[in-house]
Amino acid sequence: MNFRTLKLTLEYDGTCFAGWQIQPHKKTVQGTVQDVLRRITRENIKLVGASRTDAGVHALGQVAHFRTKSKIPPEKFFIALNGLLPPQVSVKSVEEAGADFHAIRRARSKTYCYALWNAKGRSALRRLRVWHIWDPLNLNAMKKAARSLVGRHDFSAFRGAQSGTKTSVRRIERLVIRKKGHEMTIEVLGDGFLKYMIRNIVGTLVDVGKGKLSPREVKGILSSRDRKKAGATAPAFGLTLVDVQY
Amino acid sequence: MNFRTLKLTLEYDGTCFAGWQIQPHKKTVQGTVQDVLRRITRENIKLVGASRTDAGVHALGQVAHFRTKSKIPPEKFFIALNGLLPPQVSVKSVEEAGADFHAIRRARSKTYCYALWNAKGRSALRRLRVWHIWDPLNLNAMKKAARSLVGRHDFSAFRGAQSGTKTSVRRIERLVIRKKGHEMTIEVLGDGFLKYMIRNIVGTLVDVGKGKLSPREVKGILSSRDRKKAGATAPAFGLTLVDVQY
Repeated sequence: MNFRTLKLTLEYDGTCFAGWQIQPHKKTVQGTVQDVLRRITRENIKLVGASRTDAGVHALGQVAHFRTKSKIPPEKFFIALNGLLPPQVSVKSVEEAGADFHAIRRARSKTYCYALWNAKGRSALRRLRVWHIWDPLNLNAMKKAARSLVGRHDFSAFRGAQSGTKTSVRRIERLVIRKKGHEMTIEVLGDGFLKYMIRNIVGTLVDVGKGKLSPREVKGILSSRDRKKAGATAPAFGLTLVDVQY
Repeated sequence: MNFRTLKLTLEYDGTCFAGWQIQPHKKTVQGTVQDVLRRITRENIKLVGASRTDAGVHALGQVAHFRTKSKIPPEKFFIALNGLLPPQVSVKSVEEAGADFHAIRRARSKTYCYALWNAKGRSALRRLRVWHIWDPLNLNAMKKAARSLVGRHDFSAFRGAQSGTKTSVRRIERLVIRKKGHEMTIEVLGDGFLKYMIRNIVGTLVDVGKGKLSPREVKGILSSRDRKKAGATAPAFGLTLVDVQY
């Protein structure tokens, strides 16, 4: 009996999950979806996700795959998954994929979006999705600093302290900062990201926006490869994995 | 000692409130904000809100006023209120108003927005703000039906069963339906609304979108003045008070 490969696109509210990756005694997205897939198929499904989003990080388009002997058509998986998953996770699509599809290995790039709330007043309605910055941010300075991060660089200065990947060279293809009303968004498209890399970049750009760092200093921080020079890690709840490109 | 009048613009997440209006043993927005104002001023403040939003309804721009002998400047009220209010309520502005200002009596019109999620799949991130409609909705038919509701009419057919206002004649100035991705919004601007009127209109428009009612029938329902003919009341969590015009 042959295995099929199915590709899932998932949306989730990271607020109540200890991140994507399965951990003992914690509620994780991978564990939640995998459990439901096991109930549906009665097989020992292993779910592989494109991005190991941190605790609190949201997703609009996380991609995952699994292999199964089940003959259940994709549209039935879609209905069963959305029916059995808790409200904080939803399935946007279930597609038949080739045997060589792999959510991590085949991913070409990923898009993340970080949301900031830049106003003296809090936002009651957006409070669980935005990082509130009280001080007025200088958008132009932030845009200028962002430009020096685009391209292929060693991002050691922006990696999480305890992360153990071999190489810290990554390529940021786009880094776009927009402002609409009080909400500022920082969209990052890249071929891969080190642990906390985006949140450390956001923390550093916010320091630039506040005038604590100059755009030129950000260039220096990048080339220093020294984590201690970059800004603080921005909180997880402002970050959303938007899309994975294959 | 003279009284001053202050005008507040408030944002709130209706999810955890039993509506605007104070009720015994229930957590309400009016009660929450009024309690904080009493702590700040040590006066027996009465807070008057422009709209008595129902339980579960959100606000981006509820307007309220109160009279006080306190000399605390508006910017200090702003900071104290945002510091003392729970995260589900925030103050967008505090302004000095004339002695004749009255949040209800001076309101010329109000804008509400209802959000629908029209897709087979749920939305994990928008789940607390949108009414999920599984069946594809016919946008053009809904727009056509909406046109017959614009203007000055007796809206008895769309009023809540137990509501006791004397006249049920209201004027809808604008009723705009938009769609972006899976999200549909119904924006209504009018000089005042009967209890459940907007949610009953939304329920009826959704029936039109599903093909259960024709746009022509909506015109008939309006002129019948018979509540039993209109659609079901749409759930509260999809509705937001956007703005009050003075």
